[in-house]
Amino acid sequence: MNNDNICALATPAGGAIGIVRVSGPEAISITNSIFSKDISLAKPNTLHYGEIIDKEGSTIDDVLVSVYRAPHSYTGEDSTEISCHGSAYILNKVVHTLIDAGCRQAEPGEYTKRAYLNGKMDLSQAEAVADLVSATNRASHKMALSQLKGHFSSELSILRDQLLKITSLLELELDFSDHEELEFADRSELMQLAQKIHQRITALAKSFETGNALKKGIPVAIIGKTNVGKSTLLNQLLHEDKAIVSDIHGTTRDVIEDTTEINGITFRFIDTAGIRQTEDKVEQLGIERTFKKIDEATIILWLIDSIPLSEEIENIKERCADKNLIIIINKIDNNNLATDIIKQLTTIASDLQHLEISAKLGTNISQLEEALFKSANIPEINENSVIVTSARHYEALTRANESITRVIDAMEADLSGDLISEDLRICLEQLSEITGGQITPNEVLGNIFQHFCIGK
Amino acid sequence: MNNDNICALATPAGGAIGIVRVSGPEAISITNSIFSKDISLAKPNTLHYGEIIDKEGSTIDDVLVSVYRAPHSYTGEDSTEISCHGSAYILNKVVHTLIDAGCRQAEPGEYTKRAYLNGKMDLSQAEAVADLVSATNRASHKMALSQLKGHFSSELSILRDQLLKITSLLELELDFSDHEELEFADRSELMQLAQKIHQRITALAKSFETGNALKKGIPVAIIGKTNVGKSTLLNQLLHEDKAIVSDIHGTTRDVIEDTTEINGITFRFIDTAGIRQTEDKVEQLGIERTFKKIDEATIILWLIDSIPLSEEIENIKERCADKNLIIIINKIDNNNLATDIIKQLTTIASDLQHLEISAKLGTNISQLEEALFKSANIPEINENSVIVTSARHYEALTRANESITRVIDAMEADLSGDLISEDLRICLEQLSEITGGQITPNEVLGNIFQHFCIGK
Repeated sequence: MNNDNICALATPAGGAIGIVRVSGPEAISITNSIFSKDISLAKPNTLHYGEIIDKEGSTIDDVLVSVYRAPHSYTGEDSTEISCHGSAYILNKVVHTLIDAGCRQAEPGEYTKRAYLNGKMDLSQAEAVADLVSATNRASHKMALSQLKGHFSSELSILRDQLLKITSLLELELDFSDHEELEFADRSELMQLAQKIHQRITALAKSFETGNALKKGIPVAIIGKTNVGKSTLLNQLLHEDKAIVSDIHGTTRDVIEDTTEINGITFRFIDTAGIRQTEDKVEQLGIERTFKKIDEATIILWLIDSIPLSEEIENIKERCADKNLIIIINKIDNNNLATDIIKQLTTIASDLQHLEISAKLGTNISQLEEALFKSANIPEINENSVIVTSARHYEALTRANESITRVIDAMEADLSGDLISEDLRICLEQLSEITGGQITPNEVLGNIFQHFCIGK
Repeated sequence: MNNDNICALATPAGGAIGIVRVSGPEAISITNSIFSKDISLAKPNTLHYGEIIDKEGSTIDDVLVSVYRAPHSYTGEDSTEISCHGSAYILNKVVHTLIDAGCRQAEPGEYTKRAYLNGKMDLSQAEAVADLVSATNRASHKMALSQLKGHFSSELSILRDQLLKITSLLELELDFSDHEELEFADRSELMQLAQKIHQRITALAKSFETGNALKKGIPVAIIGKTNVGKSTLLNQLLHEDKAIVSDIHGTTRDVIEDTTEINGITFRFIDTAGIRQTEDKVEQLGIERTFKKIDEATIILWLIDSIPLSEEIENIKERCADKNLIIIINKIDNNNLATDIIKQLTTIASDLQHLEISAKLGTNISQLEEALFKSANIPEINENSVIVTSARHYEALTRANESITRVIDAMEADLSGDLISEDLRICLEQLSEITGGQITPNEVLGNIFQHFCIGK
């Protein structure tokens, strides 16, 4: 339990409104000491209009103060939120005045860390808060929301219950081990349970592939000869979304360039700066460079506009063996070779999907987007989906899986319970680490919360 | 009175928290329709924790909803504020969902416009809101706050009362004009009152000079020969302020480069891009260029590091006749001419203030800052100061002053009351225009509110 009081700006300055958050045992009395109204006895979840006064007695701003009382607040502590005019000058002054009145400037993520330490959420939920704030598309938003709502946590809780069941049955077996004539815990039942756990952990660990791709964007490489129309195609795919929020000053600053969203999933174009540069030069696209791009991508768009293809196709097919390769015949608006290209393609590579487009005119771009979405092969995500998105969770799951595999092996070898229980304990610990149910070392917490923004 | 419901994002996205504002007769019921809790009967000024649900029935976010009921809200209408996680994706979704539920996206400044139209504040106070949000230093913050608190409005109200008193006395005179033998309103008393009004309006109009300088920053020109150390001095003066808020992502984006704050007042360096460029070239600073800078500035810092000075000094003194000229002897750390320069200076220009500095080592920079602050000659500003900061107000005051001057002239010429009353009426109208007490044309309102940000 923290005994000090923290404050921080919780919104970027420069909007109509700016929010300063205060949390801690004296949050309300400290806020009260700089506020023109008496809120010391204010009911929880109420709003109060008044002025913030600095230590010289001058008014800083007309504000609205929200009052929350423990444990019914974000942090689980007494808290206030001061809603000011959104000027950086005012917000800075309010934070300074709070510090003068006894607060400490909060560290990044400290509000959420306190929420975790005060039992308002477990560690995986706390991590979901950061993901939720940085979510830029539907899929990553749904994944973060699902994790915040505790769906991942309850999956883990079920697995832990099952592991505890195995452990207790094995202990029972050990307790009666000198009565050899006794019927012991049904090993085949234990085995079934262990395998079920193993399957579920494997599935969760595997979902990290999807989770990671969705979080970072599915990597796509556009390859092809110079002047085949790579940058024209890229520009078609990057068409700007006319979002309402993007009209507002400052909302677009986190947008990463050269990504596009198709059906709520982000696609990330690899090394597109390169594409743009090479378009201006002649034949700079060396084969090594192309292969490097292919290695980094999971989907390859190979643009062609001429024949013969035979040699190239074999080369690229081999290189894309474990990738999604989409062959794109470009310039169909103005290419008398199109028919010949398609003929060659169907002869020598009938197993590969191909699309005919005109990047210049935008012909069949929506079909290409559909093909991209299909190639990404992402399951439908909703706010109940359990998908692992954190490398920390993935590592813990991997280690848990190693332990449960050893448990299964030991059971198959008919080893005694005491040899198995250590691995069960490790498996249990690894799963607990994800939600932070056990005592989590400070450095792990530090690692997690340092990536949060201040005020969260 | 507006009958439709508006919504807008009131904070930039990308922080820990983002706020969406809703206002209008159905603000609460519309918010209620997308909220997991029933807030239709919620008490005013209360906070409610729940989920925002989109039209497909999916959760968008866990939020806190503030409920305000007319007339006790910013706009004077029923209002809600939805406090979400600060992701652009979420905020965008919430705004879209509100629009689907019957809101209209608010125009810039529309909340404050409604506050004005619903009598929550007068027009000059509404304008102060925009100034307050964009205030970047203590002086402009205090000026905006004073105007928001209505100090300017009450000054104007006193002036209007006095004008009405003159008008009614003159009317009395007119009513009895056929009884020539009657003692009429004491013209000398009227004259005194008119002169008092004239003086006050003049003072207010004159304060615009200060107000404008404070709002835009006091223009300072650094002049001197190439290699005299202009850009080094500039860098010394631009030392970064270690503000708490500036640690936070996005708060510094509105900072204008090449301004510095001294004792809460902003100083703006004219054409400093030029200074930096010319440092690299040899003798590019033509005399015309220097003079242009001098014309734009109110304070001139003239850097010298060598003699003779006689010719130059006459030239620059003449040009700076109505400016604040500070002569700065640079490189005192490493200039064997320093003594000679000072000797020459005291001989040929003993009337000019000078300072000895080393821009490189930062020697005497704080003295220079003091000299800059003193030269700015800004009166102490507090939240009760009445200083005109708007060109619109200045124009109205200037026109009001013209009318009241005509009134005084007419009285001096002993003209009859009916010839005077028209000018009194114009003066009254001009003052009323500032606070928008009369019916304000839509285009004037449009002009005022278009410069607001969305959500304010």
